[in-house]
Amino acid sequence: MDIASLRKNHPDHWKKATAIRSLTLDAVAAANSGHSGMPMGMADVATVLFEKHLKFDASAPRWADRDRFILSAGHGSMLIYSLLHLTGYEDVTLDQIKNFRQWGAITAGHPEYGHVSGVETTTGPLGQGIANAVGFAMAEEIQRARFGKKIVDHHTYVIAGDGCLMEGISQEAIGLAGRHQLGKLILFWDNNDITIDGKVSLSDCTNQVQRFKASGWHVQEIDGHDPEQIDAAIAKAKTTKKPSMIACKTHIALGHAAQDTSKGHGALTDAEQLKAAKEVYGAPIGAFQVEDDVKAAWEAIGSKGAEARAEWEARFASISERKQAEFNRAYALDVPKKLGGVVRALKRQVAEGKPTVATRKSSEMALEVINPVMPETVGGSADLTGSNNTKTGDLGVFDVDNRKGRYIYWGIREHGMAAAMNGMTLHGGMRPYGGTFFCFTDYARPAMRLASLMKIPTVFVMTHDSIGVGEDGPTHQPVEHLAICRATPNSLTFRPADTAETAEAWELALSSKETPSTLVLTRQNLPTVRTEYKQKNLTAQGAYVLADAEAGKRQVILIATGSEVSLAMQARETLEAQGIGTRVVSMPCMELFAEQDEAYRRKVLPAGPVRVGVEAAVRDGGWDRWLLGERGREAKAAFVGMDSFGASAPAGVLFEKFGITAENVVAKAKELLG
Amino acid sequence: MDIASLRKNHPDHWKKATAIRSLTLDAVAAANSGHSGMPMGMADVATVLFEKHLKFDASAPRWADRDRFILSAGHGSMLIYSLLHLTGYEDVTLDQIKNFRQWGAITAGHPEYGHVSGVETTTGPLGQGIANAVGFAMAEEIQRARFGKKIVDHHTYVIAGDGCLMEGISQEAIGLAGRHQLGKLILFWDNNDITIDGKVSLSDCTNQVQRFKASGWHVQEIDGHDPEQIDAAIAKAKTTKKPSMIACKTHIALGHAAQDTSKGHGALTDAEQLKAAKEVYGAPIGAFQVEDDVKAAWEAIGSKGAEARAEWEARFASISERKQAEFNRAYALDVPKKLGGVVRALKRQVAEGKPTVATRKSSEMALEVINPVMPETVGGSADLTGSNNTKTGDLGVFDVDNRKGRYIYWGIREHGMAAAMNGMTLHGGMRPYGGTFFCFTDYARPAMRLASLMKIPTVFVMTHDSIGVGEDGPTHQPVEHLAICRATPNSLTFRPADTAETAEAWELALSSKETPSTLVLTRQNLPTVRTEYKQKNLTAQGAYVLADAEAGKRQVILIATGSEVSLAMQARETLEAQGIGTRVVSMPCMELFAEQDEAYRRKVLPAGPVRVGVEAAVRDGGWDRWLLGERGREAKAAFVGMDSFGASAPAGVLFEKFGITAENVVAKAKELLG
Repeated sequence: MDIASLRKNHPDHWKKATAIRSLTLDAVAAANSGHSGMPMGMADVATVLFEKHLKFDASAPRWADRDRFILSAGHGSMLIYSLLHLTGYEDVTLDQIKNFRQWGAITAGHPEYGHVSGVETTTGPLGQGIANAVGFAMAEEIQRARFGKKIVDHHTYVIAGDGCLMEGISQEAIGLAGRHQLGKLILFWDNNDITIDGKVSLSDCTNQVQRFKASGWHVQEIDGHDPEQIDAAIAKAKTTKKPSMIACKTHIALGHAAQDTSKGHGALTDAEQLKAAKEVYGAPIGAFQVEDDVKAAWEAIGSKGAEARAEWEARFASISERKQAEFNRAYALDVPKKLGGVVRALKRQVAEGKPTVATRKSSEMALEVINPVMPETVGGSADLTGSNNTKTGDLGVFDVDNRKGRYIYWGIREHGMAAAMNGMTLHGGMRPYGGTFFCFTDYARPAMRLASLMKIPTVFVMTHDSIGVGEDGPTHQPVEHLAICRATPNSLTFRPADTAETAEAWELALSSKETPSTLVLTRQNLPTVRTEYKQKNLTAQGAYVLADAEAGKRQVILIATGSEVSLAMQARETLEAQGIGTRVVSMPCMELFAEQDEAYRRKVLPAGPVRVGVEAAVRDGGWDRWLLGERGREAKAAFVGMDSFGASAPAGVLFEKFGITAENVVAKAKELLG
Repeated sequence: MDIASLRKNHPDHWKKATAIRSLTLDAVAAANSGHSGMPMGMADVATVLFEKHLKFDASAPRWADRDRFILSAGHGSMLIYSLLHLTGYEDVTLDQIKNFRQWGAITAGHPEYGHVSGVETTTGPLGQGIANAVGFAMAEEIQRARFGKKIVDHHTYVIAGDGCLMEGISQEAIGLAGRHQLGKLILFWDNNDITIDGKVSLSDCTNQVQRFKASGWHVQEIDGHDPEQIDAAIAKAKTTKKPSMIACKTHIALGHAAQDTSKGHGALTDAEQLKAAKEVYGAPIGAFQVEDDVKAAWEAIGSKGAEARAEWEARFASISERKQAEFNRAYALDVPKKLGGVVRALKRQVAEGKPTVATRKSSEMALEVINPVMPETVGGSADLTGSNNTKTGDLGVFDVDNRKGRYIYWGIREHGMAAAMNGMTLHGGMRPYGGTFFCFTDYARPAMRLASLMKIPTVFVMTHDSIGVGEDGPTHQPVEHLAICRATPNSLTFRPADTAETAEAWELALSSKETPSTLVLTRQNLPTVRTEYKQKNLTAQGAYVLADAEAGKRQVILIATGSEVSLAMQARETLEAQGIGTRVVSMPCMELFAEQDEAYRRKVLPAGPVRVGVEAAVRDGGWDRWLLGERGREAKAAFVGMDSFGASAPAGVLFEKFGITAENVVAKAKELLG
C-alpha cells in the first residue's frame, strides 16, 4: 500500500504511525547516529499491534500478565522508544528521546533491559530476540499451567529482520517453537529485502515462508503497511495452535529518499531529505513535534489496558494467599525459605558419607533436593541429559500435552537454549538452568554474555570441564573457557571441588538476582575434600582455607579449583611429610573472592609463602592476580595447568602427560623454595 | 532394506560395509569408549560413495584434485578411520585402529585434521563440518574458475547427522550453499531419528526436506541401506546445478541389540551383544578380523583413483610453468615474493604522510596493495563490508555467474563465515579473510577455536574493537574479547596502533602457515604513532620500544596496544615535561612477544621502572604477565582499562567516563612512583 492511499484511507492510523517515523528521524538526526529505516518500515505493524492487540498498561510496565513485545531487530530501537514515549510510559520522556544514544540517557543505541521499563530484553546482537521470545512463550505456558489461565494468559510478540533470520540461532529458536507448538508466540518478519551490504538476495535465497512451515509454524504473508491486513493477520495468528510467523512486506525508510536502499538502514540525517520525508507524511516539520491529537490518541492506547489490568488484579486477589505469595516470591526472585535447609542437609550427609562422585553427579544430588522446594526452577540440557545430570525425578517433561513439565529437552541447540533460558528469566517467575559440555559454552557464548550484560541470573550447567573429558579429545576439552567466563563482567564462575561446594554453588546461583552463574563440573569422579560439615556457605567467600600448615610453619600455599583441589591435597601431604608446611586454598569462585574485603583476602593468601596455582586450564584465567599478588611483588609463584589444547586419551593418562599431577605441584613448590 | 535382503541381494557390498561395522564395534570395545552406532548406520552410504563415486587415491592423500569427504558428525570417527584403513591409507594401520582414542595414536576420539592424512577437517563440535564443506565447495569453484576444469574439478561430500542439522550453524551453511548454487556439494543426512536424549521428535519436528528445499537445494529421499538407491541418488546429485541433500533413512547401530535406540549412539561394548551383531552380519567373530578378499576389494577401491590421478598429473604438467608454480605456491601457503615489498612501500608512504585514520581503514589500505599481488586471498564480511573495510577494488564479487570473484558477501552469518573460511583454508590454495565486529567473535568463536586447534591460518578481521564503537552501546562494545582471543592456544591476536603496524600485522597473518590470526581494528580515527619508516617488521616481535626516556632517566614504562598507544604517547609527553623519564612500549601482539627470547623481552621491559598498561579492555586479557613480571615481584604496576561493560554514548565521552585517558595514565604512573 502506498503512502497516498494510506493517508487517504487510514488517516488516523497514518498519523499515529507517522509520529513514530518522525520521532525516529528526529532522534537519529539529533544523535547523528542510529538506524532510521527499520522503525520507518515497521511503524504500521507496530501501530496496529499496540492499538488493536497488545495487552499492556503504560502506567504499569511490569504488570505480570502483560503481553511481551520484543524487538529482535534491536538496531531499530527508536521504534520501541517512540512507542513507549507516545503511549505514555513515564520513564521515556521527550527529553530521553532527544538524548537518544547519549551518556546517561536510558535510550541507548540498542534497547537495554533494565534501562527502559518497557524493554523486555536487550537486543542488538541479531537473532537473540527470537530465541528469547521462545523462552518467554515457554515460561508463559509453564506458568499458565501452574497458576491457571485467570492469572497467566498472554502473548509474546517479536519483530525480526532479515539479519535475525540469517543468524543460525533463529533456526534453533524456530525449531523449538514449532516442536512445542508455542501457539501464543507471534513473530513479525520485517521483509524489506535490504541488509547493510545491499539486497538480501546478495547473500540469501531462502524462502522464509517455506522454512518456517518446515518447522511447524503457521505462516501468513501480508502487506506490512496495510493496517487492515496487519490487523487481520494478528487476529488470525492468535487463533492458531502453532507459533505464527507473519511475513510483512515493507519498505525500509518508507517515504524517505533512501527508501528501499541499504542507505535507508542507517542514520538518515540529511536535513533537507528529512524535511521532504515529513512533507510526504503530512507531518509537522519541527523536530520532535507530535500533534496534540495524535499524542492523545497514542496515550489512549497506552491506558486502554488499565481496565484489563484492574480485572487481573482482582482475579489475582481472589486466588489463595499461598498462591499469591508463591507467585510474588518467584517474580521477586526470592528464594524459598527451605532452600538453605535442604542444602545444609545435603552437606551434612556428604560430610558423613564422603562420596567419591563427579561434580556433575554432585550437582544432580543438589538438584534432587532443591527442585522439590523451588517450583520455579526449570531444568534442561542440549541433548546431554544423562551426561549433564540435569534431570531430577520430580520435574516432569515439558511438552505439548504436559505444560507443567519443568524439564526441557532442548535438542542440539546450545545457543538457542541459552537465549531461551534468558527469555524465561526475563519473563519473570522462573529460574531456568540448562546444561551442555563446558567446551560448548563456545556455542552458547553470545547469549551468556547478554545474561551478564542484562544482569539476569540465568544458570548455565557446564559439565566435562577439562582434559578430564578423556578420549573425546581436544574438540571436547575446554582449556580456555574458564578464562572466557572469568573475563566476562558480571558473571559468577563456580568450579566446585566436591559435593559440598557444588551444593553451595547451587545455593548461590539460585539466590543471585542480578548475576548469571556458570557451574563448571567434572565428568570424572572426585573424592570428598571437605570432610567436615560446615554450616556456613564457604563458597560464598569465593576461596577459603581447606587445610593448613602448623602455626608458624607455613612455607607454601597451594591454590586450586574443582578437580585439582584433591590433587593439591595430595601434594600437601607429600610436602608436609617432608617438613614443608603447606596450606591448601580451595577457590571455587574467583569473582566472589575478589568481592571479599581485603582483610579476608589477606587472611586466606598472606604474603610470605610461595604460591602454586593448580587448575587444568590456561593460566590466563585470572590466576596471576592471586599468584603474584594483587599489586604484584607479593609472592614467588608458579602455575600447574595447561598451555595447549588437550588430546584424545584416557583422562588419567592425560593428567600425567600434561603434568597436572601432585608430583609436579610438589616439585614446583620446592623449586620456588629454592 | 533389511539385513537379510542386503546379504542376499548385495553380498559383495554387504561384506565391505560389514568390515566397517565390525572394525567400529571392535575399536570402540577396545577403547571402551566412543560412538559405535553412527558408523554402523552409515556404512552402506559410505561404502557406495567410496566404491562408486569418490575420486581419491589412497596412496596420495593430498592429491589436490581429490574429492573431499567430510564427516560433520565427527563422533562417528570410526567410520572414516575404517574407510581409510580398509582402502589402504598408509598411516591408518591396523595398530592405529586398535589404539583408537589412546595417547599417541592418530586415531583420536573425533577426527583431527593433521593427525590422519585422509581427514580433511576436525569435526566433533556439531554442524561445523557442513559449514566447512561450504567453504571447500566455494574454494573449488573459485579455483576451477582460475585454473580451469582440467586442473580443478572435484566434489565435496559431507555426512551430517541430526545434531548437525539442529545446530544453528547448519542453517547459515545451507543458506550460503543454496544462494551460491554450489552444485558440487553433496550432503548426506544420516536420518536415523535418534539423538542422545532419545528420539529426534523429543526436541524437533522440522521437515528437513522442506527446509533444504526452502534454501534452494536439490533433495532426494532414499533408503540409506540400499546400495542401488544410494548409487542412483549420488549419480543424480552430481548432475544437478544445486547443492544436493540426500536424506538417507538409516538404522543407527544396524544389526545390534541397541539398533534404533539412544544407547546405540554411544559405546557398544557388551561382548555378547557384539558377537551377536557379527553373527547377524555373517562377519568374522574375532576382534579386528577382516576377510582377505574383503580387504583386497577395499584396497582395490583405494587404488582405483591412481589412474585418474596420473592423468591429472599429466594435465597439470601441461599447463604453463608459471601457473604450476602459482598453484604450488598457494597450496604450500608460501607468500609471493612481492608481499614484503608492497608492505614496506605502504609503510614508507604512511611514515611520510602520517595519516590519521581508523585501523580498519589502515587495513583496507594494506589490502589494497596486498590483494593484487596475492591472488589466493578471498575477502568477505558478514554484512558489514563498508564498516569492516574488507573489500578492495580488484577483487570482484563471487557469484553464480562470477566464480572468479574473490569477495564474498557472507550475509549476517558470522559463524557460518568463520567455519566456511576454515573450509577454504583446509581445501588448499586459498587465504581467506573475513570481517565482522569484534564483539561478534562471540558468534564466530566455535569456528575460530577450531582454526587454532587445526593449526590453519584463517584470518579474522574484527573491527569496532572497544568502547570506541560509541553510540551503538555495550551490545556492540567488546571488553572481554581480547582476553578470549589471547587465552586460546595457537592464535595470534593483533591489535595494531596505526597503519604501519596494521600492514605489518597483515604481512604476518598472511605469512602464517599454522596459526590463525585475529586482526583487532578500530572504528575511530587514530594518529600515526610510528612516524619514522622502519624497514623491519617490528610487529613480528610482538612488542617494541616506540619512544624512550633519555638514557639513565627511565622511571616509567607505559605499555599499550592499538588505539591506546597514541594515548600512552600523550601521557609520555606530560610525564617527560614533568621530568619523569618515560618509555612507551607498543605491544601489537602479546603472543608473538611471548615467543621472543628472554633477552629481547628484558630489553623491552627492563626491571626497575614502574609500569602502566593501557588497553580499552579488561585486565584479564593477559596483562599481568607483562605488568607484574613473568615471575612476579618485578615491578610496581597499574592498569588503565575497563572493568565493566561499556555504554551507549559518543566514543570520546566514553573514554572520558571510563577513565581511559592520558591524564589517568599520568596519574597512575605518578601514584606508583609515590
